[in-house]
Amino acid sequence: MNDLDAVLARIDANADAALDRLFAVLRIKSISTDPAYAAECKTCADWHAADLASIGFTAEARTTPGHPIVVAHDRSATGPSALFYGHYDVQPVDPLALWEHDPFEPRIETRADGSKVIRGRGASDDKGQVMTFIEACRAWKDVTGSLPIPVTVLLEGEEESGGVNLPPFLKDNAAELKADIGLICDTNMWDAATPAIQTMLRGLCGEEIIITAADRDLHSGFYGSAAANPNHVLARIIADLRDANGRVTLPGFYDGVPELPEALKQQWDSLNFDAGAFLGAIGLSVPAGEKGRSVLEMTWSRPTCEVNGMGGGYQGAGFKTVIPSVASAKISFRLVFDQDPHKVRAAFRDFVRARIPADCKVEFIEHGSGSAIRFPIEDAAFTKSRDALTAEWGKPAVFIGGGGSIPVTAELKKALGMDVMLTGFALEDDRIHSPNEKYNLHSFRKGMRSWARILHALAQ
Amino acid sequence: MNDLDAVLARIDANADAALDRLFAVLRIKSISTDPAYAAECKTCADWHAADLASIGFTAEARTTPGHPIVVAHDRSATGPSALFYGHYDVQPVDPLALWEHDPFEPRIETRADGSKVIRGRGASDDKGQVMTFIEACRAWKDVTGSLPIPVTVLLEGEEESGGVNLPPFLKDNAAELKADIGLICDTNMWDAATPAIQTMLRGLCGEEIIITAADRDLHSGFYGSAAANPNHVLARIIADLRDANGRVTLPGFYDGVPELPEALKQQWDSLNFDAGAFLGAIGLSVPAGEKGRSVLEMTWSRPTCEVNGMGGGYQGAGFKTVIPSVASAKISFRLVFDQDPHKVRAAFRDFVRARIPADCKVEFIEHGSGSAIRFPIEDAAFTKSRDALTAEWGKPAVFIGGGGSIPVTAELKKALGMDVMLTGFALEDDRIHSPNEKYNLHSFRKGMRSWARILHALAQ
Repeated sequence: MNDLDAVLARIDANADAALDRLFAVLRIKSISTDPAYAAECKTCADWHAADLASIGFTAEARTTPGHPIVVAHDRSATGPSALFYGHYDVQPVDPLALWEHDPFEPRIETRADGSKVIRGRGASDDKGQVMTFIEACRAWKDVTGSLPIPVTVLLEGEEESGGVNLPPFLKDNAAELKADIGLICDTNMWDAATPAIQTMLRGLCGEEIIITAADRDLHSGFYGSAAANPNHVLARIIADLRDANGRVTLPGFYDGVPELPEALKQQWDSLNFDAGAFLGAIGLSVPAGEKGRSVLEMTWSRPTCEVNGMGGGYQGAGFKTVIPSVASAKISFRLVFDQDPHKVRAAFRDFVRARIPADCKVEFIEHGSGSAIRFPIEDAAFTKSRDALTAEWGKPAVFIGGGGSIPVTAELKKALGMDVMLTGFALEDDRIHSPNEKYNLHSFRKGMRSWARILHALAQ
Repeated sequence: MNDLDAVLARIDANADAALDRLFAVLRIKSISTDPAYAAECKTCADWHAADLASIGFTAEARTTPGHPIVVAHDRSATGPSALFYGHYDVQPVDPLALWEHDPFEPRIETRADGSKVIRGRGASDDKGQVMTFIEACRAWKDVTGSLPIPVTVLLEGEEESGGVNLPPFLKDNAAELKADIGLICDTNMWDAATPAIQTMLRGLCGEEIIITAADRDLHSGFYGSAAANPNHVLARIIADLRDANGRVTLPGFYDGVPELPEALKQQWDSLNFDAGAFLGAIGLSVPAGEKGRSVLEMTWSRPTCEVNGMGGGYQGAGFKTVIPSVASAKISFRLVFDQDPHKVRAAFRDFVRARIPADCKVEFIEHGSGSAIRFPIEDAAFTKSRDALTAEWGKPAVFIGGGGSIPVTAELKKALGMDVMLTGFALEDDRIHSPNEKYNLHSFRKGMRSWARILHALAQ
């Protein structure tokens, strides 16, 4: 039996002990956003530091202005190094009444089809996923006394609450944390049978606009038509932002947005994504974006403009014939490829100002700014990891895009200059951030084995 | 001294006693919308009934499913009859902290320019205005033992809280209440020196629309572009409702909207309305309605479309990248001349439905429906009243339009088939419905004299 097979056998043999450890960490109420749980966050960081030390890492829970950050090194091997990022904090559990059991008393449930799930806050996001990696390391150390490659583990405690202390920490400790590749286990599989590596993340440009017309609310009977109504001004701006074909009309918006590279396009086509089922699951059926684009393109490789919130005037019960003084909107642009968030913001502000009547005012508030990220899927770390996943799951792993933004990915790229491989074993139905969060026991077991294989592959 | 001169002298001689009576009624907390003040509303109705009886009216406070309605008759005279309508209820006084004194402890204040005002809730709306009429009746009865014409006084106690019990009351008592002309004292002068009769009231068609897209709120990163965003759907509808020239685009909307009759146009032109000052007072300067129309036309004789409220998605502090499931708006149309509110509503609903994506839904809620009203200014009751006001104020009284709707006017016209002459002595700065409401003492004194003259004129 070669080392890898021995490690995989060890993972299988010790699966119950691994589950016990996961349950131990799930019991810790590490809700980072609520100051009442600060001590539990520290407990969780200390738990991880001790656990990693027990495997043979040199591990510390380091203080920050917020919750501690766990840093652990195992440099017993040579070769290309990896930095694994995860987070030990969890979302709040409100509304508690919707949980079927204590969210911090994890348990195994058997579903109607006989499959088992781990229920509890953090089971999937991100404690379960983090432990798949740590358990893989433990097995390698148990069997061979070493890891296949040098590994640093970095566990943040504020991912669910803004994460403001991570970027300066990365910057201050760049020399210590730098590695050849970043690894993150905080994403989904393509489906329950198909492993995936996410290689594109969209950027974001968030703006709030506040339009003021008259200096007070007015009676629409007395002032209707004569006085500018900021609701109308705002609606006109929003309507003008997209044309009849669903394209964003900001001048220069599509600068830096190429057509999808042919190889990636073919790979995405081969996913046989079911757009009807995707929209059907949320009660819709008509793709609302750019005409002539697939739903996958709309959500992965094309930029968007979405009004996340808008309001003006009377919104309570009944009716009030008021012309409001103020109307406002929160608008976000998801960016792709080489779009420049600062240029998009400037173009948006010019666009809005050009539509503000001479006697009205507009105020802008910036909410977030980040470029899109994409990683080179042809590089060895990505192809080796893909092959390792394929070997474990018996089905070709796929490179996928993703509509959202994972800010830490950009931070790792920026502060440490490294590419990041995002893979994970969560599923769409894991109910992360919601009551009754779960992680499939199958995801946990095969996740541990997947990381054992990836560590091995990266060493080759 | 002829009768009229004697009556006017009597009013001047007894002005302090009239003020005492007004203060007595202002002290009664007849807030109709708050059930806690139901007993005070009854007290106020009873006060009026007793006061009118003391003048020689046959007067009753009649029970309704809500607050009482006062009905009083004096048919000692012959000739054309009049029904005077007023309301004895008042608006709530919140926020109480903004009042400079107890809103129900009225007092006279002397302003910097030496003029005096009556401060207190209801001083202007409508207790002060109502008492100008009743005091005129009292003076006529005191001096001549009779009124110049048969008069019925109808005082409602729910004008500020929906007034749902008045229309059935008018219908059930139509034979008793019918008169040759209706009189209402609940409006403003043109300015502090110029009396006015309001002869046009706009109608109203109020609609609420609720647009539902996905069956839940969505993450805009995952679903942006692909999923319909009801904020965008709503903004498009609102933007489409008015064209670049400020005209409402609903098909058939301007059916029944003629150009202003030349005589009225000339009269309005002669008002020398200062549109710049009108807009300047609210911090604006650019008329926002139909191009080529004056501000007076925009607010008096042209129909409007105003979004009184709209909202969808996240409107709290910060930012949330959500695509909401629902967006909604409250939209009102002010109608003029012969526009049919039911046709406008139907056209609006068709217009909206045509802009709802196939996978979204829209719900409509009706909020009010009333045709515009205009009265024949060439009729004797109007010309005689205008001349009486001119005589009292020493400045030609003007016929004006008005942007708002006074629902009781339509109800009187509908239930009793009579025209209504609206005149009043309130001023723009009376702060009705707001803290520190006032009524100029000058308005009160000359208001009493004005009604004494109008009653005399209507008998000629």
